[in-house]
Amino acid sequence: MVTVILLSIKEIRRREKEQRRDYILNEAEKLFFSRDYDNVSMNQIAQEVGLNKATLYLYFNNKESIYFAIVLRGVQIFKEILKNKVNTGKTGIDKLEEAGRAYFEFYKDYPDYHDVYLYFKSKRFKDSRDEYALQIESLTGDLMIIICNSIQEGIKDGTIRKEVKPIEVAVFVAVTAERIVGLGPTTLKVLECQGIKHEQFIEDSMDLWRHMVMNNVQN
Amino acid sequence: MVTVILLSIKEIRRREKEQRRDYILNEAEKLFFSRDYDNVSMNQIAQEVGLNKATLYLYFNNKESIYFAIVLRGVQIFKEILKNKVNTGKTGIDKLEEAGRAYFEFYKDYPDYHDVYLYFKSKRFKDSRDEYALQIESLTGDLMIIICNSIQEGIKDGTIRKEVKPIEVAVFVAVTAERIVGLGPTTLKVLECQGIKHEQFIEDSMDLWRHMVMNNVQN
Repeated sequence: MVTVILLSIKEIRRREKEQRRDYILNEAEKLFFSRDYDNVSMNQIAQEVGLNKATLYLYFNNKESIYFAIVLRGVQIFKEILKNKVNTGKTGIDKLEEAGRAYFEFYKDYPDYHDVYLYFKSKRFKDSRDEYALQIESLTGDLMIIICNSIQEGIKDGTIRKEVKPIEVAVFVAVTAERIVGLGPTTLKVLECQGIKHEQFIEDSMDLWRHMVMNNVQN
Repeated sequence: MVTVILLSIKEIRRREKEQRRDYILNEAEKLFFSRDYDNVSMNQIAQEVGLNKATLYLYFNNKESIYFAIVLRGVQIFKEILKNKVNTGKTGIDKLEEAGRAYFEFYKDYPDYHDVYLYFKSKRFKDSRDEYALQIESLTGDLMIIICNSIQEGIKDGTIRKEVKPIEVAVFVAVTAERIVGLGPTTLKVLECQGIKHEQFIEDSMDLWRHMVMNNVQN
């Protein structure tokens, strides 16, 4: 049987535009992943995609906006990893631990997306009202909610102690995760002198998180 | 009784040089505390201290070196605070908590020194072999030892669980302390939405640290 799908001209145009937008992002990504933000220009992006600059501006407002659209891709990937990981945890405290593991997986499997996400969160872009920046903020909010829900579940099932405030633990875990993967060279040297590799430190940090919130009182 | 102190010419010269060096640092400090590192030049420093640039170079190799000498002042202040605070703790776990408090006190009472110290630790200066940079690294090592000693004491007196590795806990506490005081605007907003002020978050984070390492098994 042959199925004939009739698409309106408008729909065809929309799809074409979408594909071209993705293509632009794929090419721009290569540039942003290989050099510093300030060393990438709209001219270079236009050259890389083989379009003139005017056409580029039909798709994106400016360089910042292209960059944010790439960061957004990264956050979407991270959200998927986080959701899947958290679902494998049985108890609330397991889910919180899996949330931590999700971050380390993201950092390890998608280092470039991880880097641009961290740079996006630096002070440099803090006042941006770009549409993609707003979408990133909204997605980041979703991530925090997923973590908060795990903690609340842990308080309910008795694996996490009642006194902790879920949002504080979520923030604490989020900010420490960032620093743990981004240890400076001096700190790495200090650990290595004691025979501790970065991976080991990450693993042991999860044990510290666990003890930080776990309920020791037997119900 | 009149005490006559005879100083050698060499000693007098040495003291004069020391005083002038301190004076240069006092003036340079004002500049570095009020604007970004890149917006301060040797010319400006020379103008501020009222010396010509050639004289300035008799005291410091370059701008970086002056900056590091200022950071070093900050680390020395922090070390004093840390030592005094830790000494007020009775048990090992109390000492570790006081070490955390010392960091927050430094951040609150000496925000400018705290800022330059953090900037010094960024990737920008990671390969410097400047004499002051080496002194800062050495002092930072001393700080880590003070924290490690507190943890070891806690393991001995039974307030901290035996399984933790002191150096890992020290690194974990150090890096989280930095991020906790430097929360970004978005994160601060998230906390505030839940009625949690930054000071409260800092205080509660210390409770999380405590639980992270505390020994729950009664000996």
